[in-house]
Amino acid sequence: MTALGAKTWVFSGGNVPATSTGVEPEFTSRDELCLLNTGDRDAGVEVTVYFEDDEPSGPYRLAVGARRVFHVRVNDFIDPHAVPLGVSYGLVVSSDTPVVAQLTRLDTRQAELATSTTLGYASGG
Amino acid sequence: MTALGAKTWVFSGGNVPATSTGVEPEFTSRDELCLLNTGDRDAGVEVTVYFEDDEPSGPYRLAVGARRVFHVRVNDFIDPHAVPLGVSYGLVVSSDTPVVAQLTRLDTRQAELATSTTLGYASGG
Amino acid sequence: MTALGAKTWVFSGGNVPATSTGVEPEFTSRDELCLLNTGDRDAGVEVTVYFEDDEPSGPYRLAVGARRVFHVRVNDFIDPHAVPLGVSYGLVVSSDTPVVAQLTRLDTRQAELATSTTLGYASGG
Amino acid sequence: MTALGAKTWVFSGGNVPATSTGVEPEFTSRDELCLLNTGDRDAGVEVTVYFEDDEPSGPYRLAVGARRVFHVRVNDFIDPHAVPLGVSYGLVVSSDTPVVAQLTRLDTRQAELATSTTLGYASGG
Repeated sequence: MTALGAKTWVFSGGNVPATSTGVEPEFTSRDELCLLNTGDRDAGVEVTVYFEDDEPSGPYRLAVGARRVFHVRVNDFIDPHAVPLGVSYGLVVSSDTPVVAQLTRLDTRQAELATSTTLGYASGG
Repeated sequence: MTALGAKTWVFSGGNVPATSTGVEPEFTSRDELCLLNTGDRDAGVEVTVYFEDDEPSGPYRLAVGARRVFHVRVNDFIDPHAVPLGVSYGLVVSSDTPVVAQLTRLDTRQAELATSTTLGYASGG
Repeated sequence: MTALGAKTWVFSGGNVPATSTGVEPEFTSRDELCLLNTGDRDAGVEVTVYFEDDEPSGPYRLAVGARRVFHVRVNDFIDPHAVPLGVSYGLVVSSDTPVVAQLTRLDTRQAELATSTTLGYASGG
Repeated sequence: MTALGAKTWVFSGGNVPATSTGVEPEFTSRDELCLLNTGDRDAGVEVTVYFEDDEPSGPYRLAVGARRVFHVRVNDFIDPHAVPLGVSYGLVVSSDTPVVAQLTRLDTRQAELATSTTLGYASGG
């Protein structure tokens, strides 16, 4: 199978909701980066996180196996710096082979959950 | 009418919510793949589902009639293997004629529903 | 200002929620087609609606003034045929000058509202 | 880092929910324009807002620092004219260097929040 997608994906609208209600971890508020690698070799991925008042953080290194998805919560980006909750951020995904990237939010700050999702902006760059 | 769209669509952010509240089937939690074939001949579609820890599953074969939509719940992908609930997945739609594909989620794990939707990533491949 | 956008937009995931709770019309469940015409002449728009078990319905004729938005509820598509509630549909927007099209859902079938939105698939065709 | 994205972004589906419930400002209903500038020089941005029954308003001038995100609530677009709540609008983002733009809604008109988001339509124009 061809590796479908693009090597660079950009999201500008990140913000991990700072609080949660409901049972953990199922209902923990989150921004989740969802990557799919349809190709036949593993994808090496670097994520850079951009903030309003600070220099970018990263790269956070991830691997997506051949013919695999990988869904990772942004608050699990710990090394080199933990991404704080409740702040505006954006992120750039750079992969050494084409992937597809979606960013999904679960917001349980109030008792009843809310969800949203979008594909990223795919760039050749 | 021309067949609008693309022959390949990719989604990376699938996860069928594992539980539901409310009256079935109206409020059953679901990921729903929404296909539109604007063309004048039927579309033969194959869906491949990708997981985090397993080889891809499929192809699941669907048909979308000429000048028709077809909305199918991902948990109705049974043969060759049922797609499990509550696990991260991605999917690739391959059609023999151009279609348009959107993935919509209804999440009723809590008493009040949440919804999200996105177009897929359209690929020429 | 240039007319930004495309002349053809496609959505595959329509379904007007069949019931509502809360005060009308503010909280009436709806699918809303949102058009923006940034150009300096009026846009003549034809919408065709596709179903699962019937031939397409339309064209529904709309006008979007120069430098104007127009947000219209799909259940206001009456002539030549009313679009029924609670059924799967898709739609194609054909404009005589470029526009941008987004489809937004408000779902108040349960007491607390849910929302979703997506851009359409832009086609040159 | 290259400046990723496009110089022009378009959204057709704006509408700031007119009322809110819950603690301010965290749960104040909003449409939020989310911009990311990955480049090494500041981005000068002009936003024009389009309405159903009036001439466009703007330009609203924003700056997005080099390697920074900027998330701004549409109801903070005050000068030259405040964008009213509860009305349909669209907007065009024009930047002097490429950026990425997403529009996110938080709707707390009812007691439990709802969220939605979409990338804009990227134009070279």
